[in-house]
Amino acid sequence: MKKINVELDERSYEIIIGTDIPVASVLQGKKDVRAHIVSDSNVYPLYGAKYCSALEAVGIKCSSIVIDAGEKSKNLDNIAKIYESALDAEVDRSGVMIALGGGVVGDLTGFAAATYLRGVKYIQAPTTLLAMVDSSVGGKTGINLPRGKNLAGSFYQPVEVDAELSTFSTLPDKEFKSGLAEVIKYGVIWDAKFFEMLEKNIEAILNKDMNILEKMIGRCCEIKAEIVAMDEKESGVRSILNLGHTFGHAIETAAGYGAWMHGEAVAAGMAYAIKLSTLTGKLEEGVEMRVRNLISKAGLPLSPIKKNGKADWKKLRTLMTADKKSRGGTPRFVLVEKIGSVVYGSEVPDNILESAFKAVSEE
Amino acid sequence: MKKINVELDERSYEIIIGTDIPVASVLQGKKDVRAHIVSDSNVYPLYGAKYCSALEAVGIKCSSIVIDAGEKSKNLDNIAKIYESALDAEVDRSGVMIALGGGVVGDLTGFAAATYLRGVKYIQAPTTLLAMVDSSVGGKTGINLPRGKNLAGSFYQPVEVDAELSTFSTLPDKEFKSGLAEVIKYGVIWDAKFFEMLEKNIEAILNKDMNILEKMIGRCCEIKAEIVAMDEKESGVRSILNLGHTFGHAIETAAGYGAWMHGEAVAAGMAYAIKLSTLTGKLEEGVEMRVRNLISKAGLPLSPIKKNGKADWKKLRTLMTADKKSRGGTPRFVLVEKIGSVVYGSEVPDNILESAFKAVSEE
Repeated sequence: MKKINVELDERSYEIIIGTDIPVASVLQGKKDVRAHIVSDSNVYPLYGAKYCSALEAVGIKCSSIVIDAGEKSKNLDNIAKIYESALDAEVDRSGVMIALGGGVVGDLTGFAAATYLRGVKYIQAPTTLLAMVDSSVGGKTGINLPRGKNLAGSFYQPVEVDAELSTFSTLPDKEFKSGLAEVIKYGVIWDAKFFEMLEKNIEAILNKDMNILEKMIGRCCEIKAEIVAMDEKESGVRSILNLGHTFGHAIETAAGYGAWMHGEAVAAGMAYAIKLSTLTGKLEEGVEMRVRNLISKAGLPLSPIKKNGKADWKKLRTLMTADKKSRGGTPRFVLVEKIGSVVYGSEVPDNILESAFKAVSEE
Repeated sequence: MKKINVELDERSYEIIIGTDIPVASVLQGKKDVRAHIVSDSNVYPLYGAKYCSALEAVGIKCSSIVIDAGEKSKNLDNIAKIYESALDAEVDRSGVMIALGGGVVGDLTGFAAATYLRGVKYIQAPTTLLAMVDSSVGGKTGINLPRGKNLAGSFYQPVEVDAELSTFSTLPDKEFKSGLAEVIKYGVIWDAKFFEMLEKNIEAILNKDMNILEKMIGRCCEIKAEIVAMDEKESGVRSILNLGHTFGHAIETAAGYGAWMHGEAVAAGMAYAIKLSTLTGKLEEGVEMRVRNLISKAGLPLSPIKKNGKADWKKLRTLMTADKKSRGGTPRFVLVEKIGSVVYGSEVPDNILESAFKAVSEE
């Protein structure tokens, strides 16, 4: 078991990583606490009743709401449903919401908790690799709008993150691989040694060696915690976490929510950002091939055309303008200098944006 | 013109009160700012174009969305509409929303601004007395749910409040009087001298003497600013601002949104809270009559039955349990000791709750 602190003054909290970790540690020993579990139609049947029993065994009252699994559920209608279910369960301001599931459940629950009765506490209990290393840490909550991903939401920190690794036994392989895209991202943006470790151990990781996974997830959370502590609300350095996301979000929106796994889109987005870095002369030689190789070995796509056989540049380009990181209609990118070192907020000329698209489509 | 500071560290802002005050002072001189006006079908036709021109005269780009006037509009659907309109207008993270209207517009705009692209700035430009003295100051934002008022929302401070008193020329008399309920509340909870000033000047106030109104609104904002600075997120003393609101919200919900003016409900709620204070032996003699007299002189109701000829206690009692200030099913009240001095968080036995209801219904 590993514990990592996210240092944010009075909003600090712990990430707990391991197998058979206790549920909701911060609540244990508290009286009259009501926990309201938000989960989805995939995860709840597997872990809902078990989680609830574990809470009730330590004297915490438990209620729940189950939403349909999938990215399409990340909308305002489900926020309304979570509110109603919490009112049904008489969850008051002292209540705690628990996000039991992947990133969609985590983002929805965080947003609902941030706004229910003007704010109640919440715990992230991620059950996917992606949610463990990315969305459950750092307090970004949100929903998708018809126009794009995460266009509404807030910064609202959980009071605890419980990454229970035994849930990998039921996690589909495709979802596990999707999570690896964000894992690779941490190496590229922050830590060359970690990137090397991934290169060496990619087979063991894919075989779900629990020792390596605990260390790997721990290191990702450490990096994220460090970055979030420096810049909680993404006014600066935190935006390096968006490597691959400008193009990635456009891919997801163009294809319709759910057609791509988020990690797949981020992987193709990283390959694209790396290509931009090469074309703008920012990138050290040899790096592009190493990143592309690792993405491939992790079973992740390097471009939309390689996954779908087609891709519409004009549509993708327009969607990048609508990205919430854009300013005055110009999308911004995180570009790579070398493994472990990136620059953020870069504008790239339109002809290079298109050349990079062609290059990743044809290579 | 009067200026009052709300001191909240990096979230501090100014309230500007007067006639013909400049629009959006904090934005003046800034380049490339886009302002997105949120207004309603009553206020926009009167002031929308004028406000927009005033912004554009100082180089600020302007777009707008107009929602239906009335409490019924304070819902999640309109939050979605504000998001979409802001996306249409290409409002990015550097954009500013402007709430031009009463409390409904202010609460909706604040909630939309708090969550659009995970948070953009907003300015409150209240056009009703109620919004000037209450909802536009202090950063409470929110929407109503089918189950009750303000059950979702957040604490999110504006960057400026512009109380333009010339808007009173178009404010319906009934709305003006509704605002007086919150004005009277400030006297009761905080400032005996201010309460006396109101008693002496109620005629001049109802005749809209601008000098007295500027001072009166200024004092209300000072009191609110002081209380909010002590307890931004209502973990303690801020809850005294809820005098009359537990019963008031129940009245509003029972009658259906829009049937009662908010201030009318607060007035009847204050009369009820004062009666609870008398029955629990908390209240100094003579005070109840003074408060009831002032409420009456302001043209406001002292009980639901006096306004409607009927009232359903059981329904009101149930709705008070659903209030977000309740804990474990027990509603909480602000009780009065004397003018300018109250206690908060009080639980009152059920038989007294009902006796007080009967007393205010029959007196």
